Amino acid sequence: MLGAAKDLQLMLAAHACRSAYTEATMIQRIAILGTGLLGASAGLALRSVGYRGSIIGFNRSAEGANTALRLGAIDSIATDPLAAARSCDVTLICVPVYATLDLMEQLAPILAPHQLVTDVGSTKGQITAAAARLYNTPDRAAFLPGHPMAGKERGGAELGDANLFRNAVWLFTDDPSWQRSATGAALVQCWRELVALMGSRAIDIDPARHDEMVAWVSHLPQFTATALSSLLEEEIGGAPELKDVGGRALREMTRLGASPFSMWRDIAHTNTEPIERALLALEQRLAHIRENLRTQELRTEFERANKFRRE
Amino acid sequence: MLGAAKDLQLMLAAHACRSAYTEATMIQRIAILGTGLLGASAGLALRSVGYRGSIIGFNRSAEGANTALRLGAIDSIATDPLAAARSCDVTLICVPVYATLDLMEQLAPILAPHQLVTDVGSTKGQITAAAARLYNTPDRAAFLPGHPMAGKERGGAELGDANLFRNAVWLFTDDPSWQRSATGAALVQCWRELVALMGSRAIDIDPARHDEMVAWVSHLPQFTATALSSLLEEEIGGAPELKDVGGRALREMTRLGASPFSMWRDIAHTNTEPIERALLALEQRLAHIRENLRTQELRTEFERANKFRRE
Repeated sequence: MLGAAKDLQLMLAAHACRSAYTEATMIQRIAILGTGLLGASAGLALRSVGYRGSIIGFNRSAEGANTALRLGAIDSIATDPLAAARSCDVTLICVPVYATLDLMEQLAPILAPHQLVTDVGSTKGQITAAAARLYNTPDRAAFLPGHPMAGKERGGAELGDANLFRNAVWLFTDDPSWQRSATGAALVQCWRELVALMGSRAIDIDPARHDEMVAWVSHLPQFTATALSSLLEEEIGGAPELKDVGGRALREMTRLGASPFSMWRDIAHTNTEPIERALLALEQRLAHIRENLRTQELRTEFERANKFRRE
Repeated sequence: MLGAAKDLQLMLAAHACRSAYTEATMIQRIAILGTGLLGASAGLALRSVGYRGSIIGFNRSAEGANTALRLGAIDSIATDPLAAARSCDVTLICVPVYATLDLMEQLAPILAPHQLVTDVGSTKGQITAAAARLYNTPDRAAFLPGHPMAGKERGGAELGDANLFRNAVWLFTDDPSWQRSATGAALVQCWRELVALMGSRAIDIDPARHDEMVAWVSHLPQFTATALSSLLEEEIGGAPELKDVGGRALREMTRLGASPFSMWRDIAHTNTEPIERALLALEQRLAHIRENLRTQELRTEFERANKFRRE
């Protein structure tokens, strides 16, 4: 798929030709703040598609940073995330939503208009509002709110995967009305090109629509798996042999039960109303099925479900 | 795992030595009634572990029987399921629960004490009751109620898989008080050996306990996937690109949405109360999560779910 586009420097140089404000290698230093699964995977993916600049990593726990360094996801470990960001062209924030909002507050006053910050946060309403308030004017750094739809049920640098973003959708809640500096705007384009090189398909979407949409296609499946796993832990947790009886279907439907609270707490807090609506709708749908186990309505539900999987 | 036990005929001969009523190759003819996914897989699995006798297949649709024949799951196609069963030592019924009950009624009066019928039906209460009523006396055929915990979200002989039962649990709701003929009892042992050879672990369980248990570990995951898929079809069915956004998590949580109504109708009808209880409990659990998206209760739910996946 990438084939001829393997040499990223060539692409960046080509891009530079289209922008008066860039040099051949516009992005020479990237800071990754948070070298967990997504941060480490981003570093590995950048390397795998030919990015040759520096990658500095910061992680709250030294172990995660050391793992990312050992895997080659980062070149060096920063001890201060703010200093790391200040020294880089692009800062990629890869921490849960509230920690992202904290970093956005701390970085805004110390960065310059020729710098870009972007993120991978799972909800985009509050982050995009903070980006409008703190960034994206001609005299401030640029901020591009992003959300790659990729992950695993467990986190950590040790699961870092250069192909995590391949064939994934990378959502952006960019705002065309933002007045970035020319350099900031060019860095945004460079980052979008890097995302494409990493194998993701970029989709631009309004932040409120984003949060509503992920409530259905991401948060509802997660909370459903959590509810099912938690319920089954109470019902059959003491009889682990019964998990074998459930087989693949049970394993699949509860895999996301392993997801960490630390990440999902922030999602639940920053997207509460859309998630409440989706959960209530599923409760009602389950009740409808329960009340119609012996009627033709059950056929309708199965046929509608079949349709969802057919298209 | 099977290693030295590959030669089934040897095993059957060894078994025959322990039974005055058997010959060296006790099971010489098997009828498979219903050559869908499970029936075709059973035929293929029997062949792959060295069964050398005849396998006659019957299927309501000629296409399914032809596919099973072409794949080598059966040697010949029967046009009359009752005549096929009458000509065989063992009859394996691989159709939905109500059709299984119908066949049990039709076969009981025409089979002899030296014949065994067994099944793969998903619920065992009604089938085991029929087995007690119609079979398993010294002057009648033996019936061994079985339920392999294996399947795919789609059916059909073309998906037949010789390894479908490998590492699966095969549940039996046998009743030690049944007074089978000696030949019938020996055939039951032979079939259990075949099941072990096909790679399954046999577990004996009370039929009521079976139905209660599968309501939690099998039926609840299925109806949850159906509810989620049906709901999402209404919410985002018109925007298929959103399915990509959901990624692997969404695909997994809705895979079972493709399951056919024809099979699940019988399960819903013959295991209604246990499924109702499980569905109601999940509705309540989802409501509890919905009402606690911003409280510490959410942490408890995630930690309990994590525990289910850890053990």
